[in-house]
Amino acid sequence: MPQAEGKEKTHIRGSVKKKSLPDAETFSKGILSGDIVLLSRAITLVESTLHSHQELAEAILEKCLPHSGKSIRVGITGIPGVGKSTFIEAFGNHLIDQGRKVAVLTIDPTSQLSRGSILGDKTRMETLSRRKEVFIRPSPSGDSLGGVARKTRETIFLCESAGFDTILVETVGVGQSETAVNSMVDVFLLLLIAGAGDELQGIKRGIMEMADMIAITKADGENIGRANRAKAETISAVHFLPAHESGIHTDVRTCSALTGEGISEIWTEIANFIKTIREKGYLEKKRKEQAKHWLHESVQSILLDDFFSKMGTDFHKAEELVTQGLAGSYQTARKLVQRYKNEDKNLSK
Amino acid sequence: MPQAEGKEKTHIRGSVKKKSLPDAETFSKGILSGDIVLLSRAITLVESTLHSHQELAEAILEKCLPHSGKSIRVGITGIPGVGKSTFIEAFGNHLIDQGRKVAVLTIDPTSQLSRGSILGDKTRMETLSRRKEVFIRPSPSGDSLGGVARKTRETIFLCESAGFDTILVETVGVGQSETAVNSMVDVFLLLLIAGAGDELQGIKRGIMEMADMIAITKADGENIGRANRAKAETISAVHFLPAHESGIHTDVRTCSALTGEGISEIWTEIANFIKTIREKGYLEKKRKEQAKHWLHESVQSILLDDFFSKMGTDFHKAEELVTQGLAGSYQTARKLVQRYKNEDKNLSK
Repeated sequence: MPQAEGKEKTHIRGSVKKKSLPDAETFSKGILSGDIVLLSRAITLVESTLHSHQELAEAILEKCLPHSGKSIRVGITGIPGVGKSTFIEAFGNHLIDQGRKVAVLTIDPTSQLSRGSILGDKTRMETLSRRKEVFIRPSPSGDSLGGVARKTRETIFLCESAGFDTILVETVGVGQSETAVNSMVDVFLLLLIAGAGDELQGIKRGIMEMADMIAITKADGENIGRANRAKAETISAVHFLPAHESGIHTDVRTCSALTGEGISEIWTEIANFIKTIREKGYLEKKRKEQAKHWLHESVQSILLDDFFSKMGTDFHKAEELVTQGLAGSYQTARKLVQRYKNEDKNLSK
Repeated sequence: MPQAEGKEKTHIRGSVKKKSLPDAETFSKGILSGDIVLLSRAITLVESTLHSHQELAEAILEKCLPHSGKSIRVGITGIPGVGKSTFIEAFGNHLIDQGRKVAVLTIDPTSQLSRGSILGDKTRMETLSRRKEVFIRPSPSGDSLGGVARKTRETIFLCESAGFDTILVETVGVGQSETAVNSMVDVFLLLLIAGAGDELQGIKRGIMEMADMIAITKADGENIGRANRAKAETISAVHFLPAHESGIHTDVRTCSALTGEGISEIWTEIANFIKTIREKGYLEKKRKEQAKHWLHESVQSILLDDFFSKMGTDFHKAEELVTQGLAGSYQTARKLVQRYKNEDKNLSK
């Protein structure tokens, strides 16, 4: 599978003719029958910036979409050092032992800077990556977090169509990426580490508010006492946050990837959470809102991308005038948009 | 002045011919000579949704813009009950006593719901509104916070052109509006009230981070002890926030609008802050970034408004398909944008 990926990438950079691609029908049939190589290649198409690849990817997605949506989508976040990889390794192995098929995807806003993370991911989740019931896919590269996130969301649909019933979306770093992940998962798990009493300081309040569940990691050996204190503090901090729409309170617990303590309980809790929000209709509502959100988001990004690709030079000149106080922001924007719309007419004549 | 405003509003709703408007030249000359009636009428034009009014407003702004920018712009926020009006009254009176000319503007995302706030503002700042060196203007109504904020920003430029050297922008409520205000002021003052030890709970961390200065209000009578404790707690909370780019630490102090205690010190602190960031070049940098931000923001809102005004029906149909999982968000967005661009060509044929 990594081999196929490698070939695909060379292929994208090289000539399109070198290896002819299967058509959308072949792709989607293969994916629906659980063909991992075709799944992997389809994801590469989703990630590709080549126009012909994008068109094929769209056609594949269109065929797969009606078969997607049947998994539990779990977002997992936490600051670097919290032990996300070790947690996901222990958690993923537990899920597979329960008979589940697991896909692990990452959203990493910095991934453009640190290529070659495929090997990185394989290494850091060594026992998990060796199991055949798992599919690990690193963060796609992209110009913007929005682009990366959109591709990850489409990858979720493809993985679901290939029969994966549990999708773990890991976010790297704290900050913007959490909002993106929250707009594509069903349940959001925040990992915290016991520190010197100020463990909440590094976490933005907004992320705490997003979390459906919080787990204090590394609750083993000498660290157990500290982890329990962190748990107590977190419970009281969570107390002040607005309650989840469904009325469910944010669950806070400790766990250890080393001893396995608390790992199975986290899954039980997630399964219960999903069961409750599904029965109450919140799961369907959340997914519908996510689809709407992405439609808006996509219209906006496509429109703005087109604007900037055509008006880039004009825009930068105008920006100069505006920052020098020689022109008003709104008035300048109006003129630019008008020029863009005329431009577009001229181009398509 | 309130009379002139009243007439203007009737006029906007009625026929345009009823009272002919002065031209941009007359407006801008009047404003630059400090004519408050013309200033007020120009602001009404900025706020108007009538196309002819908008064009006139743009022409006036264009003429005034080179004369703007010479004031100190202070954003003031705090939750309801913190005593914003009484603070601004005491603070504004102090500024006028110092020989300054003060304009008080408000950004109120809820103002659409509670019209008639002109009278409200005049009443709640009774002694201040009676002084001739002050100009109080309530929040413009608008469809969106962005629209309201944009109009407020343009009002700042007009007030500056009319010779006001201190602009106080008050935000009502906690939440979104703070970000908007922060994108148009030089210094941001957060008012807090001493409560039951959890005074920071109601305030989003992001707002704390935005604040350049924090004042605990109502530090008088029996409340002094509590205010001082709140000050100490706030200082330690602020300690964990990232430092201001300029290296200046968030100033925390107590004040009382009732006794006047601490009011003049807040002004001294603001003046020092401005002096420092001006000397270090941060003021110019901040204003340039704000102008850029508004240019981007305006391009985005103008483009999207145009899209939705033309594609509204199509968009809502597409949204239905997307939420039912029958079409992908990104693919649908691409088709919609393409149709929008073709539509625009057809319309302008």
